[in-house]
Amino acid sequence: MQTTEFVRENFTMLCDFYELTMGNGYFNTEMRNRITYFDLFFRRVPDGGGFAIAAGLEQVIDYIQNLNFTESDIEFLRSKNCFCEEFLEYLRSFKFTGDIYAVPEGTPIFPREPILTVRAPAIEAQFIETFLLLTLNHQCLIATKANRIVRAAKGKPVSEFGSRRAQGKDGAVLGARAAYIGGCSGTACTISDKRYGVPAGGTMAHSWVQMFDSELEAFDTYCRIYPENPCLLIDTYNVLKSGIPHAIEVFKKYGITKCVVRIDSGDITYLSKKARKMLDAEGLTDCRIIVSNSLDEYIISDLLHQGACIDAFGVGERLVTAKSDPVFGGVYKLVAVEDKNGKINPKIKVSENSVKITTPHFKKTYRIYEKETDKAIADLMCIYDEEIDFTAPLTIFDPDNTWKEKTLTDYYAEELQKPIFIGGELVYSSPSAEEIRKYCAEQIDRQWDEVKRFEYPHNYYVDMSRKLWDTRHELLRQASKGLQ
Amino acid sequence: MQTTEFVRENFTMLCDFYELTMGNGYFNTEMRNRITYFDLFFRRVPDGGGFAIAAGLEQVIDYIQNLNFTESDIEFLRSKNCFCEEFLEYLRSFKFTGDIYAVPEGTPIFPREPILTVRAPAIEAQFIETFLLLTLNHQCLIATKANRIVRAAKGKPVSEFGSRRAQGKDGAVLGARAAYIGGCSGTACTISDKRYGVPAGGTMAHSWVQMFDSELEAFDTYCRIYPENPCLLIDTYNVLKSGIPHAIEVFKKYGITKCVVRIDSGDITYLSKKARKMLDAEGLTDCRIIVSNSLDEYIISDLLHQGACIDAFGVGERLVTAKSDPVFGGVYKLVAVEDKNGKINPKIKVSENSVKITTPHFKKTYRIYEKETDKAIADLMCIYDEEIDFTAPLTIFDPDNTWKEKTLTDYYAEELQKPIFIGGELVYSSPSAEEIRKYCAEQIDRQWDEVKRFEYPHNYYVDMSRKLWDTRHELLRQASKGLQ
Repeated sequence: MQTTEFVRENFTMLCDFYELTMGNGYFNTEMRNRITYFDLFFRRVPDGGGFAIAAGLEQVIDYIQNLNFTESDIEFLRSKNCFCEEFLEYLRSFKFTGDIYAVPEGTPIFPREPILTVRAPAIEAQFIETFLLLTLNHQCLIATKANRIVRAAKGKPVSEFGSRRAQGKDGAVLGARAAYIGGCSGTACTISDKRYGVPAGGTMAHSWVQMFDSELEAFDTYCRIYPENPCLLIDTYNVLKSGIPHAIEVFKKYGITKCVVRIDSGDITYLSKKARKMLDAEGLTDCRIIVSNSLDEYIISDLLHQGACIDAFGVGERLVTAKSDPVFGGVYKLVAVEDKNGKINPKIKVSENSVKITTPHFKKTYRIYEKETDKAIADLMCIYDEEIDFTAPLTIFDPDNTWKEKTLTDYYAEELQKPIFIGGELVYSSPSAEEIRKYCAEQIDRQWDEVKRFEYPHNYYVDMSRKLWDTRHELLRQASKGLQ
Repeated sequence: MQTTEFVRENFTMLCDFYELTMGNGYFNTEMRNRITYFDLFFRRVPDGGGFAIAAGLEQVIDYIQNLNFTESDIEFLRSKNCFCEEFLEYLRSFKFTGDIYAVPEGTPIFPREPILTVRAPAIEAQFIETFLLLTLNHQCLIATKANRIVRAAKGKPVSEFGSRRAQGKDGAVLGARAAYIGGCSGTACTISDKRYGVPAGGTMAHSWVQMFDSELEAFDTYCRIYPENPCLLIDTYNVLKSGIPHAIEVFKKYGITKCVVRIDSGDITYLSKKARKMLDAEGLTDCRIIVSNSLDEYIISDLLHQGACIDAFGVGERLVTAKSDPVFGGVYKLVAVEDKNGKINPKIKVSENSVKITTPHFKKTYRIYEKETDKAIADLMCIYDEEIDFTAPLTIFDPDNTWKEKTLTDYYAEELQKPIFIGGELVYSSPSAEEIRKYCAEQIDRQWDEVKRFEYPHNYYVDMSRKLWDTRHELLRQASKGLQ
């Protein structure tokens, strides 16, 4: 038996190759020690939803702390014949020395605002791009999807059951973590319980039922071994003619009243209503019914709307892959560069597609709440050193339609990003997944119902301060002028 | 610097919790040492395609060889208060002692046929379910999707660029491996090159261009450092007014003729045609144009149909997540159990949904080829000990519509599955990813074009021998009788 614990694989080399060729490029120019600022943000909420949920920061922290090129990494890179020896030597002692600011996990997040901001020498800031994106893109995607499904279930517990259909190991293990942050009550994935405290549970597979000479014998054996709250899978042969009668017979034989039956196929509304009646008629009113089979937020809404008798949901592939919209399109863009004197120069990317134009500069973002209701009204991005008087009335405006203005009086503001690393040192302590889950639920309570709607949700405002808007406009004007 | 190499994380605990509760259950019954047979198969090709591609076996082998519960795993399981001490003790020396047969990676595969078959004591065979499914589901999904995209590109190279949008680390690292098996020419993911020999390459990010005072300076610096086949990203400001003129200026300054420009936004057909003309007019006829931006098989087909001037494609999120259909629905079902005397009894799962009914028994599957063309005609599932005379004419029939028969004369047959583990010992040597990629291309050449069509492909036949069909029919009859 192996006694070492949770050995970490080294994922330093999980980077797009161009991070390294650009790194080697910067290394050979005056950009080498230039301080850069990158924002990680996204452009669109999956499934047309009103908001997303931040998740994955703990794994970003792990990654940053464990950056480390091995001897064989260096050898491999040397074999590519495109890196200079001095750069390879530099990689031997490579570590992250910059600052990272980020929105805490579990926070509702909106398009265009910085979820995470990096201030670091160009090579370092560029190098970590791929891993940061894939980690946050994945967990934000699943937390966001899970939250939709949990909201559709209207208080009935939702368990994450999807490991077997996940896109690789992280898809399962960290998918379960993200789903829990988004509001799921537990997972089927054992290792996610051990590592992150996501409560793992389960029922039985069809194979258990098939293994015995009869369904009755299979149920009997199971309840004998697990008399405390057993869960029987009742659709191996026929739910109403076989599964439910056998389950009732066995529960009564052992005097079990606290128990569960699971339906994994067929018309779930019909079967659950019939099953409920049959169980109740035998006094098994405390027997809960859990259902599964390609569920998502839409099917769950329909089932509940039709009055299906369901106590809990098991959701697999459509949650763990976010099947209906499986990409969280986070990007990582340069927003400013310090010159030799430490002056911060904002940078913009123009692009052929206007939606791909970035918001320049090192920024601070505030969430503004209505005092009376504690509900969020808008987010406001400002330049890092702007002093905004949040005790005075505040006029905000739509950055796309600048004539649309609104003046707020009874409000307060909270900064969204927290310092995570300063000068390469970790200054943040990650909460447990359970704490994040609780925080997430509280934060979502601070959003209006209109933003939570599945279909055509209210478009939450992510505004810019006048100074930031002017800066962006001026950079766009200059870029456009250069093209004439 | 860390000098240890490729440390493996222990993923023994990456299992659905019910694998363990069922294991503990079998441990406490006479099923404990019962030999069972499980088939891993899928029911539907993603994207409505005609076939899928097997991938992921190498990672299954790694997993089986590294199964190992640590002391803290055992402690964690004990804290769950549902496992008996004897079972926990048994887990301390748990390993896989059975047989595994599998279709080699890179093989075209079809619904309902066994991709992998396990023969092992019940607890072992059940335990490995989750990991086997997630590994094969993930890589089969990506290899299948990659192959569609590669076929759409009609011989122009397709690079996998999607790490940043992948669903976790494996999504990126093993996604790149699977995409390579499916026919991609390379990846952006550095670690996939080091680990699996998938050629990694890259271009530059917009940040490189933004970092300098002008696009011209950015291109100049890059070409000075990388004069050999440099690739310039030309859409940071404006492709035709800025990107292409600056690229031409710099290529000419350094006398570079072998080079690449990349377009990542805008109307790619229009821009690529204009760019080609501008490059050719300056004698840069060897400058290749690579395009990216949310491509998939349909967009690539359209671009080529419209005469876009493209030499290579970079495909990201829609490949690495198989966005249009991101779940490969492989399942793992009990098909037979040996009795105390070693007699193999076939088992069936009936289910409320007829598509979920399984094909019972320990089976052998053959792929039948037409001699004249070497093209595959059908696959034939038989019972493991059937002796079929493949030198005589062979009559096959549609298992759903049994009156549809066909007699083959000029044919030959090859068995699909190979022995991987026998008695817990590895008896198979995994080919390299490069070898698998080559094998995959050869095998796909042995499929008819009708099966490769994107829209409404020919439905390839996966037939059963008469004996197997009769066995399944009889089990269904018995199950149905028991319900009357």
